[in-house]
Amino acid sequence: MSTIALITDFGTVDGFVGTMKGVILSIAPQARIIDISHESAPQHTHHAAFVLWSSYKYFPENTIFVVVVDPGVGSDRRIILVEGDDGKKILAPENGILRFILPELKNPKMFHINNSKYWLTPLSSTFHGRDIFAPVAGHLLNGTHCEDLGVPIELPMPETPFKYIDASTKEKYGIILHADRFGNLITDIRPQFEHLDDIRHFSLEVSNRIIGPLKKTYADGEYGELVAIVGSSGLIEVAVRNSSAHQMLGLRIGDPVIIRSDGA
Amino acid sequence: MSTIALITDFGTVDGFVGTMKGVILSIAPQARIIDISHESAPQHTHHAAFVLWSSYKYFPENTIFVVVVDPGVGSDRRIILVEGDDGKKILAPENGILRFILPELKNPKMFHINNSKYWLTPLSSTFHGRDIFAPVAGHLLNGTHCEDLGVPIELPMPETPFKYIDASTKEKYGIILHADRFGNLITDIRPQFEHLDDIRHFSLEVSNRIIGPLKKTYADGEYGELVAIVGSSGLIEVAVRNSSAHQMLGLRIGDPVIIRSDGA
Amino acid sequence: MSTIALITDFGTVDGFVGTMKGVILSIAPQARIIDISHESAPQHTHHAAFVLWSSYKYFPENTIFVVVVDPGVGSDRRIILVEGDDGKKILAPENGILRFILPELKNPKMFHINNSKYWLTPLSSTFHGRDIFAPVAGHLLNGTHCEDLGVPIELPMPETPFKYIDASTKEKYGIILHADRFGNLITDIRPQFEHLDDIRHFSLEVSNRIIGPLKKTYADGEYGELVAIVGSSGLIEVAVRNSSAHQMLGLRIGDPVIIRSDGA
Repeated sequence: MSTIALITDFGTVDGFVGTMKGVILSIAPQARIIDISHESAPQHTHHAAFVLWSSYKYFPENTIFVVVVDPGVGSDRRIILVEGDDGKKILAPENGILRFILPELKNPKMFHINNSKYWLTPLSSTFHGRDIFAPVAGHLLNGTHCEDLGVPIELPMPETPFKYIDASTKEKYGIILHADRFGNLITDIRPQFEHLDDIRHFSLEVSNRIIGPLKKTYADGEYGELVAIVGSSGLIEVAVRNSSAHQMLGLRIGDPVIIRSDGA
Repeated sequence: MSTIALITDFGTVDGFVGTMKGVILSIAPQARIIDISHESAPQHTHHAAFVLWSSYKYFPENTIFVVVVDPGVGSDRRIILVEGDDGKKILAPENGILRFILPELKNPKMFHINNSKYWLTPLSSTFHGRDIFAPVAGHLLNGTHCEDLGVPIELPMPETPFKYIDASTKEKYGIILHADRFGNLITDIRPQFEHLDDIRHFSLEVSNRIIGPLKKTYADGEYGELVAIVGSSGLIEVAVRNSSAHQMLGLRIGDPVIIRSDGA
Repeated sequence: MSTIALITDFGTVDGFVGTMKGVILSIAPQARIIDISHESAPQHTHHAAFVLWSSYKYFPENTIFVVVVDPGVGSDRRIILVEGDDGKKILAPENGILRFILPELKNPKMFHINNSKYWLTPLSSTFHGRDIFAPVAGHLLNGTHCEDLGVPIELPMPETPFKYIDASTKEKYGIILHADRFGNLITDIRPQFEHLDDIRHFSLEVSNRIIGPLKKTYADGEYGELVAIVGSSGLIEVAVRNSSAHQMLGLRIGDPVIIRSDGA
């Protein structure tokens, strides 16, 4: 039983997502459709790129991810299909939305989806989620080959967006990458330690404050205390126990952070 | 495998929709339940009427649409079941919520749902979504006949809410019908052209501005430029590339628009 | 076919819920996953406790409820599994979130979920919804015994949070327990009458106003009139026909109410 997982900026008010599901089920009645998020800020690809990356590996084999944050809809931007060697597939506009997930995939095959035989007619110029993405996902789930839906292409693999640190790192510059619902500020700093305890040799500078040493969980902080921990995505994040670091610090996506070892 | 598609004003905070799904699955465990929208403004039927119309045709055969925006719950308003000749069914309160979709259906059969044998007991006076709509939808999906769930009635068919134009139209008055998440302002003007290129002979007057000639897609506009296009529902809409026409123009549902041919 | 029903404070923006579903489907592809609410205010258990209570009985036999509002994540708070004699199960942190539903269950069996063999590795300290709750729910649905997932425990049963009244009640003090999307203010007063008509012998005092006698439905009030009725959860609530009592009265959760019989 195959899963289609959706990430869009369509919101849940207008019925756009429900309509896409109607199209998918008309073609592939056996589809199991899961919503990941429809609340990316309209037409900003950064949030969707992060959400795709952070949820990808938790989905079953053969999941088809459909990502529709598409400010260029109706222009000549391409629609890309990526097939990982784990059997998962991602369908998305070519607008940088894959920049977090692509570097994690081994030998991905890529296709430019251009076979309009599988699209709805009449084709609207403004709702390709319904007219192209949804039917292509349905046909993929039914077993139509990628080669039938488009043509193979090669795209340059983007560099990893993360700053890796290990136990020997002295200092590294990073940024705030994402703020979640709980007000946790997630950085692009990604520890790769053999022993997670090594985290206690590091502290984080953010907005002229030193937060450190790093802790293992929110609950190791006092109420109202800023803590830096390794969050659930494996990235260092700034949090406040039972409160919002985002609100307390007023930081924005892209603001700088520095991680430093205490030299111990 | 049959689909039940939900449109309500219940929001997603209180668990009303989840409770309806619990009732449906208790009766029809095989149901595939799809959310279209639960974010109609509380007790305003206009939004739900538009969303039902714009999504209807994209759902599979035999879909049962359940529409619960029901300011008259507990009064003597009737619950109506409509069966189209496409096998789809719509269950909704009799409050005008069907006025967009009914004129599109050919020879719909209509029923007044009044057989309380199929309802939950005790019947609340305030949550018929749970106590009547959900169980009736479940039984419909299980194959119970419309005639068992209620009695046939005849309702006057409403006039189409749309203003049709074709290549020979000189001038037509319309209104703003809907504003979507992206700030696109959707009018009630519905072109029926043999050649979509004919759209370029028209311009739209809205809020004392002339927007024209009509374009094919958002992407044909400059950034920040107002454009009028034929949107994904087949209606003329006002948009701004990568921005919000709604915010720029400050228009409201019901505000007037005029479309004019350039006489070419 | 077994159902997993989710209540969290994860919102729908970050993809947390979608990720949990990915984990569940990876383990139990046959799961039918229903969202009850993901919009509990972050880390406040009261709302989730109410929503769980009000939806519980409408779900099919064998439903597994997964409740993740978990301000103590990463601390030594326990995760509890409750099995009712109706075959339904509830998985939740031990933080009072079960205080509304537990008194309704007959002879519930309880377990402390502590067998990490069934959890994801590496185990994060901040997202147990993904790493513990989701996989445990998947294994439960696959038939793994509660005894394998944890150890039996006995917890004190909380007192009912409700104030019961019957036809002989003269006066009873209660509170506002919940405000729903429509602005209805739901109290903790729970009538148990043989004849619902007896409700007309009562009136409610709230915020120095007397609202009474109680009515049967919103629609029995004039537009703009405050009415008190027995709501869909069987609790007395304050409502305004087609408007918001919450907005009109400005009351908060916990504010006092008094119900009085007219002595007739």
